[in-house]
Amino acid sequence: MALIIQKFGGTSVANPERINDVAERIARYHKSGHQIIAVVSAMSGETNKLIGLADEMMQNPDPRELDMVISTGEQITAGLTALSLIDKGIQAKSYTGHQLGITTDSSFGKARIMDIDTKILKKDLKQGFVVVVAGFQGLDKVGNITTLGRGGSDTTAVAIAAAIKADECQIYTDVDGIYTTDPRVVPEARKLNSITFEEMLEMASLGSKVLQTRSVECAGKFKVPIRVLSSFDIKGDGTVITFEEDKKMENPIISGIAFNRDEAEVSVRGVPDTPGVAYQILGPIADANIDVDMIIQNVGESGATDFTFTVHKRDLKETMDILNEKVKAKINAREIMGDSKVAKLSLVGVGMRTHAGIASKMFKVLSDEKININTISTSEIKISVILEEANLDNAVKALHKAFELEKG
Amino acid sequence: MALIIQKFGGTSVANPERINDVAERIARYHKSGHQIIAVVSAMSGETNKLIGLADEMMQNPDPRELDMVISTGEQITAGLTALSLIDKGIQAKSYTGHQLGITTDSSFGKARIMDIDTKILKKDLKQGFVVVVAGFQGLDKVGNITTLGRGGSDTTAVAIAAAIKADECQIYTDVDGIYTTDPRVVPEARKLNSITFEEMLEMASLGSKVLQTRSVECAGKFKVPIRVLSSFDIKGDGTVITFEEDKKMENPIISGIAFNRDEAEVSVRGVPDTPGVAYQILGPIADANIDVDMIIQNVGESGATDFTFTVHKRDLKETMDILNEKVKAKINAREIMGDSKVAKLSLVGVGMRTHAGIASKMFKVLSDEKININTISTSEIKISVILEEANLDNAVKALHKAFELEKG
Repeated sequence: MALIIQKFGGTSVANPERINDVAERIARYHKSGHQIIAVVSAMSGETNKLIGLADEMMQNPDPRELDMVISTGEQITAGLTALSLIDKGIQAKSYTGHQLGITTDSSFGKARIMDIDTKILKKDLKQGFVVVVAGFQGLDKVGNITTLGRGGSDTTAVAIAAAIKADECQIYTDVDGIYTTDPRVVPEARKLNSITFEEMLEMASLGSKVLQTRSVECAGKFKVPIRVLSSFDIKGDGTVITFEEDKKMENPIISGIAFNRDEAEVSVRGVPDTPGVAYQILGPIADANIDVDMIIQNVGESGATDFTFTVHKRDLKETMDILNEKVKAKINAREIMGDSKVAKLSLVGVGMRTHAGIASKMFKVLSDEKININTISTSEIKISVILEEANLDNAVKALHKAFELEKG
Repeated sequence: MALIIQKFGGTSVANPERINDVAERIARYHKSGHQIIAVVSAMSGETNKLIGLADEMMQNPDPRELDMVISTGEQITAGLTALSLIDKGIQAKSYTGHQLGITTDSSFGKARIMDIDTKILKKDLKQGFVVVVAGFQGLDKVGNITTLGRGGSDTTAVAIAAAIKADECQIYTDVDGIYTTDPRVVPEARKLNSITFEEMLEMASLGSKVLQTRSVECAGKFKVPIRVLSSFDIKGDGTVITFEEDKKMENPIISGIAFNRDEAEVSVRGVPDTPGVAYQILGPIADANIDVDMIIQNVGESGATDFTFTVHKRDLKETMDILNEKVKAKINAREIMGDSKVAKLSLVGVGMRTHAGIASKMFKVLSDEKININTISTSEIKISVILEEANLDNAVKALHKAFELEKG
């Protein structure tokens, strides 16, 4: 008998029929002797509908009140899922985040879980109940309802798994596991049986949007074993995310190719290579709440250097305006360049650590395809490049083939 | 400066535009110096939609889980109302029933409020906030979300008014006050400026469904002044429900005529007039959870009597079956008669207490109209009769005219 957390996302609980399917799956696990805590998202479309209502009342809705409104989506699904379980003869109880004592900080809309009280969970499990939890939400210390931000139900599931020391945290989604790359770009992409947390972190943050990055970080921190499964496919073992490298069954050099079409590249050219310049460039960007992803600076020649970074495409115009108006003259930069027709591609794999020559092989493959590389950045387990967006699909296909990722 | 509770029902907050109107009304009161606690219902149709979803998951949904699902309707309206207020530059905060410490018993779907903690309310009011409360809901002592049943937002408003000793509890609805009778039947029906609680209780329970009976009881118990107003009409003073007779500005003999087409009449004829017979008749009816309204028994002649009572029309068949199968032979009754083509009509007025001859005048009016009376029952402030449903409208019109209710 194992204690399993099962998380079902919006498409898995899209409507009453799908909720019924989810309840059947939970019932099967429960009947085979496992203890189950199910974490559910809002029915797909529901959160957007609620945000739409809030937008009708107020432009840029007050975040406390917005959380009050949108947290109801998960509460409804939780109640409906419990009803379906009870209808199948399974003892079940649903809870909101605040009923369960899921305490968060007060960052409405993107709150972080501080603490989970497992008293109620343990008592109900002991009495044979399946517990259904409304994901994505909690209560701050002064009693305000908070939400964890988009995809936050993953975090709820992982945090509960960590707090109650679950044997496994199963994330049900609309894909049947983690693939070597997006199968829509490379039909030969292969499902991985396992992937390490570090690799998953790179894959998730780079745009393979199966799991929310924060939930992966949380799982890694508390060493919660996660399994990604399809809610549409009752067979299949999905992909296990392991936290120990040696437990990984397969150990290829490269696990996958992640990519992201959402980023734009910004270059500040001819910058005096003096201390404090990086801060002078990025400070005003951060002040405007614009997230920066890659940051690259080359060794300067003759006292000047180029400083390049990426932002989300939707933030490019504001970023350029800030740099031109507030930064350019101040740091005496030669020119500011912005390019939104780029994409980021990353080779990811823990095996890279002990294998030389991956980078040079990658660059040769791209060169053979006549694909130019704008910028390069590396970490221990990934190599990322920015290239023209028009070349992205070809680059992914060529690299997938060259590194034989379609083979197990 | 007064402390005012304002309650807005489903049609008043039917959609974002209507919620905006409600927020404007609250803002006006707030700007003129009053402290406001607004209690809101779910947007009209929302609760039925949620019940429909629950019904799809399970026949006769588990009541705890049903409350979990349907309590979200009011939470959404509360958040949206607060957003609209904030958008108008008014400081506002919304709360669920459980956040506010509205403690109820555990009768899911029809819970009763046990206690309200006014700490948060007082603190927010002091800081200048308008507080918006999700009506219709609370938390039981072990932390389950409960609902107060249909129309329960009225009870929430009155209970908060009582707990915080508000100066007035305003109930906004789709009528602009309490009328002498239903204007659809008597176009000359006149809006009352005031009505006593006892009269309102008779009017409400007899089918003038402006206020939930329970909320009126609660208001009477705690002497909370209620004012019924139209949310569609920004002028107009509505009808005040007073708890002291002498405070009533007008003091007519009859305040209004209530009627109810939902009741059916059941007669058990030729019953031995012995102790225990009433219980033997009504016990099995109560056991089947059938509500009984009027009960009439005449003084018996030659050891036998007739026993008459009314039930809801939908319960007539079951009632007849129970009486014929379980009761008739046992008490040796001559016959059981059921009639669903009847209606109840009541003259209501505290003035009756000190005015003789109201009953005889009423019976004369009906007699002049050639309307036969099946049964009669009276209390200190009302006279109720059961008559043929086909005669109801004529009876109401004739009585309204005879008692000059159209005159102020």
